[in-house]
Amino acid sequence: MALICDHGEQRKDTKPGALHTLKATPETVHWGYFHPNIKPALYVKSGDLIQAEAITHHAGDAPELMMDEGVKAIWMGVKPEDRAPGVHIMTGPIHVEGAEPGDMLEVRYFKMVPRCNYGSNLAANWGHLYQEFGEKERVTIYELDPNANTAAALYAYDFEGKYLIPGTITHCPDCDKETALQGVRIPARPHLGTAGVAPAVDERVSTIPPGAHGGNIDNWRIGAGSTMYYPVQVKGGLFSIGDPHVSQGDGEISGTAIEASLDVFFQIIVRKDFKFPTPLLETDEHWIVHGFDEDLNKAMKNTAKDMLELLTDHQDLSANDAYSLMSVAADFGITQVVDGTQGIHAKIDRGIFPNKGSVKDPDS
Amino acid sequence: MALICDHGEQRKDTKPGALHTLKATPETVHWGYFHPNIKPALYVKSGDLIQAEAITHHAGDAPELMMDEGVKAIWMGVKPEDRAPGVHIMTGPIHVEGAEPGDMLEVRYFKMVPRCNYGSNLAANWGHLYQEFGEKERVTIYELDPNANTAAALYAYDFEGKYLIPGTITHCPDCDKETALQGVRIPARPHLGTAGVAPAVDERVSTIPPGAHGGNIDNWRIGAGSTMYYPVQVKGGLFSIGDPHVSQGDGEISGTAIEASLDVFFQIIVRKDFKFPTPLLETDEHWIVHGFDEDLNKAMKNTAKDMLELLTDHQDLSANDAYSLMSVAADFGITQVVDGTQGIHAKIDRGIFPNKGSVKDPDS
Repeated sequence: MALICDHGEQRKDTKPGALHTLKATPETVHWGYFHPNIKPALYVKSGDLIQAEAITHHAGDAPELMMDEGVKAIWMGVKPEDRAPGVHIMTGPIHVEGAEPGDMLEVRYFKMVPRCNYGSNLAANWGHLYQEFGEKERVTIYELDPNANTAAALYAYDFEGKYLIPGTITHCPDCDKETALQGVRIPARPHLGTAGVAPAVDERVSTIPPGAHGGNIDNWRIGAGSTMYYPVQVKGGLFSIGDPHVSQGDGEISGTAIEASLDVFFQIIVRKDFKFPTPLLETDEHWIVHGFDEDLNKAMKNTAKDMLELLTDHQDLSANDAYSLMSVAADFGITQVVDGTQGIHAKIDRGIFPNKGSVKDPDS
Repeated sequence: MALICDHGEQRKDTKPGALHTLKATPETVHWGYFHPNIKPALYVKSGDLIQAEAITHHAGDAPELMMDEGVKAIWMGVKPEDRAPGVHIMTGPIHVEGAEPGDMLEVRYFKMVPRCNYGSNLAANWGHLYQEFGEKERVTIYELDPNANTAAALYAYDFEGKYLIPGTITHCPDCDKETALQGVRIPARPHLGTAGVAPAVDERVSTIPPGAHGGNIDNWRIGAGSTMYYPVQVKGGLFSIGDPHVSQGDGEISGTAIEASLDVFFQIIVRKDFKFPTPLLETDEHWIVHGFDEDLNKAMKNTAKDMLELLTDHQDLSANDAYSLMSVAADFGITQVVDGTQGIHAKIDRGIFPNKGSVKDPDS
């Protein structure tokens, strides 16, 4: 596995430290916001392992399938008026010893396992084709097949009214359950829609728009086996996870993914030897940078500049070489168009570099 | 192989008809434009096979490597003032017997073989980061390794002035050849940047902006093994190919791909049983729709609407089901941002449908 470093040096792997468990409870979640003053739910050291629960704010779409006692306790324990200004249930924050503004927080996601085998997709009032669908909201409930790693629609129903209160509990036991997408099987891509560090702002920051702190990036590649690098904004980092998804396409066009609670196992590492201005994703095959803006045209430009920076600062290419390489080998995609601040990502294959995106360990 | 049909019927395969050869010569190319009144370079019947030459308009970037006698003859035979208003050398048009407006022209690309093992990437004045690079143009020449199916930079040079005349011949034998991208090997993805039917407009239509007729779509997936469906605009279709590329990333960010002449082998079929409003791409794994606009935000909306139409009209899904499926399983990407009219494409995996994107042949 490559470990990005300044000056092309190979960093030694960080051995696992202590193992922590972080349950999602009314006391360990913050619903709808990031804030640097939230009391940490967990204190860890760099290298520690964390087994944590990420709870979907759409569990109320099919409470009989998606809510257990732990989930219900959060709905009961967090008042609707305290679920603001965003919508996502965030577990944390996790205070990481030694993390300072200017560092990077490296999060290695090892496992993401559905808490139950059901998820919900909402055609939402913030969806890309809401007007074209006559301003109707509709819920489709999916069932997961953990053996085949696929999802299939179980039933669907129109939602009367508008999803305005995060964590709305619907009552489809009383409504018509319609069959949907018969025979279609969707590949499961369990991932975190929202995760990130606390922004350095002394007020609640909505979980909805993504940004330099991470947040609601909604890139389905942020799953098990991938590593995210988040720029630390405040002391301790104060990292939180939420908005778990089972499947999502690039675009997240209806407004949500298949939203489903996940148990997430990860390692968290403070990096002082490496900087990047925006959340950076490493997978086995790719480096992926993220650009944001309310205007896709500007998000595109931001993403292009970040890919240029990745290639010049971390692959030691000249700017001229990097620009040519980007044109012939970097793929730009639409991450999502439904979070107000829209997202574009660009990926480049690590295998094209002579050192596969890293270099030989100088001490080995 | 799936064959898209109305009402989910499986169409029988079209057996190869006659084999035609279409050389690129000053008499068989039109440089920079589509026009319904160009005299056809070839007349074929539906099902016929064509072995044709697609010539890069960037052969002048390294004439000692990228020009042979046939290419030189085109540069000598087509006056610079007749290379307008676009830039691409188009071979054709091919008149297909029986093709009428409202039909689809199905083009099955079987082979795309480089004519020589060199290509050129230009950081162009229309590139996405032209301002950020101090309004400098730069050429990088790549060498192809046909055995490994990769490309590697051979040398690079700054271009003094501006690439304003299509087919500019540079004189880098007299300039400094700088080393570039040492050790980096780029996967080759030979494809046609520009191909399409004649628009129903009684004037020269620039080859630069893509549109319903096809044209400069710049999707690197339009390569060997893929099938394109173009909406026929005029009698006979009048199909032309050009702008061959060896490698390009989604975005084509510097303004060009690795531009290199290709020999292209394909079959052309008139389809009267199936309609789609924009160029549609079928690969072994995916259906891919294309949306266009000068504004990426609008291109995104156009692409989403076309994906919805594909799923409802050609997979018999309800609009509600299609919208949910798009959100959780369709990936939207940036095709290119450098052709004036920008492009977004959306792909959906054919394997998720119970019939793999087609249905059983009712006669089998």
